Amino acid sequence: MLLNCDLGESYGSWTMGMDAQVMPHIDQANIACGFHGGDPVTLRRTLALAAEHGVSVGAHPSYQDLVGFGRRSMVHSAEEIIACLHYQVAALEGMALSQGLTVAYVKPHGALYNDMMASGEVRSAIMHALAQYHRPLPLMLQATPAADAHRSEAGELGIELLFEAFADRCYDDDGSLLSRRKPGAVHDRERMLSQVRQLQSEGTITTVSGRVLPLQADTLCVHGDNLEGVQAIQAIRALVDGN
Amino acid sequence: MLLNCDLGESYGSWTMGMDAQVMPHIDQANIACGFHGGDPVTLRRTLALAAEHGVSVGAHPSYQDLVGFGRRSMVHSAEEIIACLHYQVAALEGMALSQGLTVAYVKPHGALYNDMMASGEVRSAIMHALAQYHRPLPLMLQATPAADAHRSEAGELGIELLFEAFADRCYDDDGSLLSRRKPGAVHDRERMLSQVRQLQSEGTITTVSGRVLPLQADTLCVHGDNLEGVQAIQAIRALVDGN
Amino acid sequence: MLLNCDLGESYGSWTMGMDAQVMPHIDQANIACGFHGGDPVTLRRTLALAAEHGVSVGAHPSYQDLVGFGRRSMVHSAEEIIACLHYQVAALEGMALSQGLTVAYVKPHGALYNDMMASGEVRSAIMHALAQYHRPLPLMLQATPAADAHRSEAGELGIELLFEAFADRCYDDDGSLLSRRKPGAVHDRERMLSQVRQLQSEGTITTVSGRVLPLQADTLCVHGDNLEGVQAIQAIRALVDGN
Amino acid sequence: MLLNCDLGESYGSWTMGMDAQVMPHIDQANIACGFHGGDPVTLRRTLALAAEHGVSVGAHPSYQDLVGFGRRSMVHSAEEIIACLHYQVAALEGMALSQGLTVAYVKPHGALYNDMMASGEVRSAIMHALAQYHRPLPLMLQATPAADAHRSEAGELGIELLFEAFADRCYDDDGSLLSRRKPGAVHDRERMLSQVRQLQSEGTITTVSGRVLPLQADTLCVHGDNLEGVQAIQAIRALVDGN
Repeated sequence: MLLNCDLGESYGSWTMGMDAQVMPHIDQANIACGFHGGDPVTLRRTLALAAEHGVSVGAHPSYQDLVGFGRRSMVHSAEEIIACLHYQVAALEGMALSQGLTVAYVKPHGALYNDMMASGEVRSAIMHALAQYHRPLPLMLQATPAADAHRSEAGELGIELLFEAFADRCYDDDGSLLSRRKPGAVHDRERMLSQVRQLQSEGTITTVSGRVLPLQADTLCVHGDNLEGVQAIQAIRALVDGN
Repeated sequence: MLLNCDLGESYGSWTMGMDAQVMPHIDQANIACGFHGGDPVTLRRTLALAAEHGVSVGAHPSYQDLVGFGRRSMVHSAEEIIACLHYQVAALEGMALSQGLTVAYVKPHGALYNDMMASGEVRSAIMHALAQYHRPLPLMLQATPAADAHRSEAGELGIELLFEAFADRCYDDDGSLLSRRKPGAVHDRERMLSQVRQLQSEGTITTVSGRVLPLQADTLCVHGDNLEGVQAIQAIRALVDGN
Repeated sequence: MLLNCDLGESYGSWTMGMDAQVMPHIDQANIACGFHGGDPVTLRRTLALAAEHGVSVGAHPSYQDLVGFGRRSMVHSAEEIIACLHYQVAALEGMALSQGLTVAYVKPHGALYNDMMASGEVRSAIMHALAQYHRPLPLMLQATPAADAHRSEAGELGIELLFEAFADRCYDDDGSLLSRRKPGAVHDRERMLSQVRQLQSEGTITTVSGRVLPLQADTLCVHGDNLEGVQAIQAIRALVDGN
Repeated sequence: MLLNCDLGESYGSWTMGMDAQVMPHIDQANIACGFHGGDPVTLRRTLALAAEHGVSVGAHPSYQDLVGFGRRSMVHSAEEIIACLHYQVAALEGMALSQGLTVAYVKPHGALYNDMMASGEVRSAIMHALAQYHRPLPLMLQATPAADAHRSEAGELGIELLFEAFADRCYDDDGSLLSRRKPGAVHDRERMLSQVRQLQSEGTITTVSGRVLPLQADTLCVHGDNLEGVQAIQAIRALVDGN
C-alpha cells in the first residue's frame, strides 16, 4: 500500500501545505500543474524535493480556477478537458524530465476529480485525454464498487488505472465517501489507523452503518496541510511499513 | 532562408492573427504557450494546423502578462525566467508530441525577446534555461553585429543559436532595428522585398543612412496579423522560393 | 423599446465587438467588468465612448473565467456571487463616475445570466447582491412567463427589474429561447424585424410552433460582434424609432 | 502618529497575514484590491473586519501580477497606470460603501510603490489617476527628504499627500531606506521602538551612519505577516499611545 499526497499547491508568495515535512514520508507526490495552484517556480522546487526523497511524481491537473482552487465544478467540453489536461501534464512532465524525474501517473484535482467520479462524460473525456497523450500514463481515481466498470471503460482505451482509498474519511454504505456535512465523516486518529490496517490486511472497509465492503486500493490518499496532518502521515507510514 | 511567424496567439473567445491563412506559406511557427496568449485549446488547434502543413514548431514563451500581451518588460529573477521558460516550453512540447510533432526551437516573445537582446543578465537566464532543459533546443534571437558574442555565450553552455532578420523593418546604422517612433521604421512592400532579396543574395542589409552591413540570418520574421500581412508573406515566399 | 448591447469585451491586445460602430445606435451599453473581458483600459475607453454618445451604462458582471469568456457555468456559493458582483459593479461604477457617468443597471453575463434564469438559488444570490449594494440598482433579466414570479422575488428585497427580449432569437412554446442546437433558433433579418415589430406594437411574440405569447419587454438585446450585426442593429433602430 | 498595515492580501484558499490579530491594533488598513492579492470574498471579509474595529480603510492597488505578488516592476504607460488604479480603487470603494465604510486614501503596493518613489513619470501617472478620480483621495507615500518636492507636484494637481515612515527599517544617509541586502537593514525590537520614539517625539530618524535627519511622518507602516510582527505592532501601539 502506497501513500499519495497533494503537493506543490503554493502559488507565488502564498504558501500551502507542509511539503518539506510531508515529502520524506510518502511514495507518490501529486503535483499541482499551475491551474489551481503551483506556479512554475513552485513546480520546480517541488520536483527538486521529490527527487531528493526519491518520491514518485504524478500530475495533479485541475480546472483553470485559481481563485476557487479548482474546487468549483465548471462545465467543460471534452475538447476543453483534453486540452487542459495535456497542457498541464506536459508542463509538469518537461519540468520533471529536466530534473531527472518521470511523471508516473495523472490524478485530477478537486472538482475535476469529483466530476470524474460522478459523470461518465467527464470521465470519458479524461480517459480520452490520456489515450491521446503521447505516451501511456495511468489514471488515478477513487476505489469504489464501480471499479470494475471503470476498469472496463479504461481498458477499451488502453488506459491503466490506479485506485486510491482515503485513510481519514468514513465510507458510506454504497462505497462512496460519507458527505463531509454528515457526523463522523472524518475519522479521528484511532479510527483512521484502524481503517488503514483493515484496508491493508483484509482489503475491506467498514462503512458508517457497520457494513464491511471489499475495497481494493493501490494507494492511500493522505493530507499534509498542517502539523496534525503531517503527524497522521507519519503514523500511517509506520503502520504501513509494519513498524 | 526560412520564414518564421508568431501563431497561436488567440485566447479563448478572442481571435488574433490569420493563422489558417499564414500557415501554408511559412516554414516555422512560433507558437504561443499560454502566458501572453494561446490557451490550451488554441495550442492544440494551432499544432494540428502546423502538422497539416508540415510546418516546423517553435515554442514562443513570454512573461506571464496576459492583459499586456507579454509586451511589458517585467523584472524577473533568473530562477523565475528559467521556471517560466521550462513550464511553457514543456507544455507545448508534450502537446506537440501528442500530435506527432517535435518542438524544434525556442523564440522568446515580446518584452522577453527585447530584454534578451538588451540585457546580458536576461539572455544568460534564458540560455541557462535551455541548458538545463531535458533535451537540447536551439534559441532563436535577432541577427545583430553582436551575433559572434552571442554565439560565444551560447557555446559555453552548449546552446545552439538561430538568427532571424526582419523583412519589413528598417535597420539603424548600429545593426539594431530603427525605433518604430522614427520615420521610415517600417518598410513599404517594395522596400521590404528589396531587403529580403539583398539578405538572401548578399547577406547584407542597407541601413537607414545607406550603410551596408553584413547580416547573416537563418530565418526571416514575418507577420500575419491581417490580410495585408498575409499578402506580404505570400510575396516574400515567392521571392525566397525563386518564383 | 430600448436597445441594449454587450460592449467593452475586448481584453488587452484582443479586440472583440465593433463597439465604435454599435454605440451610436443603442440606448444601453452592458459593459464588461474584467472577469470575462474588459481590462481597465478597455473599460475606460468604452465608458468614454458611451459618454460621447449619451448611452446609458450598465454593469455586465460575470463568473471569473477569462479563457471561457464567462460562458461556462461554475458552482458558486451565494457569498462568492455577492462578492464577485459587488467587486465588478463597483469597479465599473467608480470608473463611470470619473467620466461623469452613472451605472444605471446590472445585467449578468453569459453563464451567470443563464444560471440566474434557470436556478432560483443563483437568482436569489444575485438579488441579494443588489440588495446589499450601497445604492439601488435595477437588475436586467430575460422577459419570460415567469416575469411575475421574478418581480415578486425582487419586490421582497426591494429590487427593481428590467426585462429584455431578444430580437434575433426564436422563442419556444414555453416562452424560453429555442435552443441554438435546434433549426430556426436564430432568425434571419426579416423574421427578426417582424419579431421586433410585434413586440413593440402588440407586446407578444410568435413561438416556434406558431403560438402567440404575451411578452412585456423594457429593452431589446442586440449584438454587434460583426458588420452584419451592426447592420441589423441599424435596421432595428430605424424600426423602433418609426423611421 | 497613526499605524498603517497591509491587509486583505489572502487569495482564495491561500492565506496571507494575520489580519484578525492585526486589525485591533492599527488605525489604517491598506486593503489589497485584487491585482496582487485580495479576491472579492477576501475584500468583503477584510472590510467587515475593518468596520468591526473602526479602522480607516485605504486602497492598496498594484500592478496586475498575481504570481509575483505585485513585487516585480513592470513597464506601464500612464494610461495603463491610471486605468489600473481607477479600477482597483473603485472596486474597493463600492464594496466599502456597501459595508458603511469610506475609502480614505490610496497607497500603491510593492513595485508600484517603489516605482512611484523612484520615477517621476510613474509618480505623475499615479497623481493624475487620483486627480481624475471622481472624488478627492489622498495619496500615501514615503516620507523622504523629497517630501517638499512631492508636495509641490501634488499641489499642482490638487492632490493631498500622506507621508509614512517605517518602524523596523534602518534609514540610509540620504533619507531612503537602507537596502535589505545591507547589514542592519531591518531593526531588532529595541531599535525599532527607539526609532518610533524618536520619530514621534523629535520628528527625526538616526541614519545608518549616525546622522540625524528630520522626517515628518503622518503614519507608521507596520507588518503583520506572522506572530512576531503582531507582537511588534502591539509594542508600537503601546508606545504610540503612551502606555
